[in-house]
Amino acid sequence: MLFFEDLEVGAETYYGSYEVTRDEVIEFARKYDPQPFHLSDEAAARTYFGRLAASGWHTCAMTMAVIVRNFEKQQTAGLGSPGVDELRWMKPVYPGDTLHVRGTIIDKTPSRSKPDIGTFRTQTVVSNQDDVPVMKLTSIVIIQRRPTAG
Amino acid sequence: MLFFEDLEVGAETYYGSYEVTRDEVIEFARKYDPQPFHLSDEAAARTYFGRLAASGWHTCAMTMAVIVRNFEKQQTAGLGSPGVDELRWMKPVYPGDTLHVRGTIIDKTPSRSKPDIGTFRTQTVVSNQDDVPVMKLTSIVIIQRRPTAG
Repeated sequence: MLFFEDLEVGAETYYGSYEVTRDEVIEFARKYDPQPFHLSDEAAARTYFGRLAASGWHTCAMTMAVIVRNFEKQQTAGLGSPGVDELRWMKPVYPGDTLHVRGTIIDKTPSRSKPDIGTFRTQTVVSNQDDVPVMKLTSIVIIQRRPTAG
Repeated sequence: MLFFEDLEVGAETYYGSYEVTRDEVIEFARKYDPQPFHLSDEAAARTYFGRLAASGWHTCAMTMAVIVRNFEKQQTAGLGSPGVDELRWMKPVYPGDTLHVRGTIIDKTPSRSKPDIGTFRTQTVVSNQDDVPVMKLTSIVIIQRRPTAG
């Protein structure tokens, strides 16, 4: 189990990849973001996207799926996240793309009021199969400190 | 159709509401955020959440659904979003909750390089049925300027 004390500022992790499918792009958009350019090539052709593109929130969800899959390999004493800063959708995500998710720990801070927890921030970058960054975000995560023997 | 020129800084919009269901919370979590506290009451009981709680990314998706539903009533010349700042998950979202989504335009800026577009930022606040804010975020949106006659 990884605790606050085990986190190295500057360390980079490759979390894994996600295959973006047309069916899933449309299914997510129908439920949560039914703007025309997330539903059909025809509607997207007249926009910046050019062809059917995933909702940015769907890209967030796919990225989270990759990160959580990684938790199964390396258990982390994480206690959830209070939020995210500077989420940027840099390029469109298209069906057929393969997304690669990487994260770098940018800082860590022990809690001032609670001796058993701390927070750290990770800069996550999602790139496609051509190594073009399509999304980045800075997540804030709460994590347990290593229990002291006693 | 609402254009850049029609946006009033300070204007607040009530976008509508969303009923959070247990089935949907679990379905989203299985696909995108299968952390134990998003999958079962039993696992959540031992955590900050206390009982089954929605993924924060699911709350973003439900919020987007409410906002897009509103586009059908009031067409906006929006061209997509480059991103979001200061996304904060303030309180857990539980099955049975009703989420209410409100947005306030905080600023607008004409593009320096492209005379036909501008950007604006909206502070979105999502509250539950007890009027407790559960999520807030600042979105950046690109929008067309009103075409000039000529």
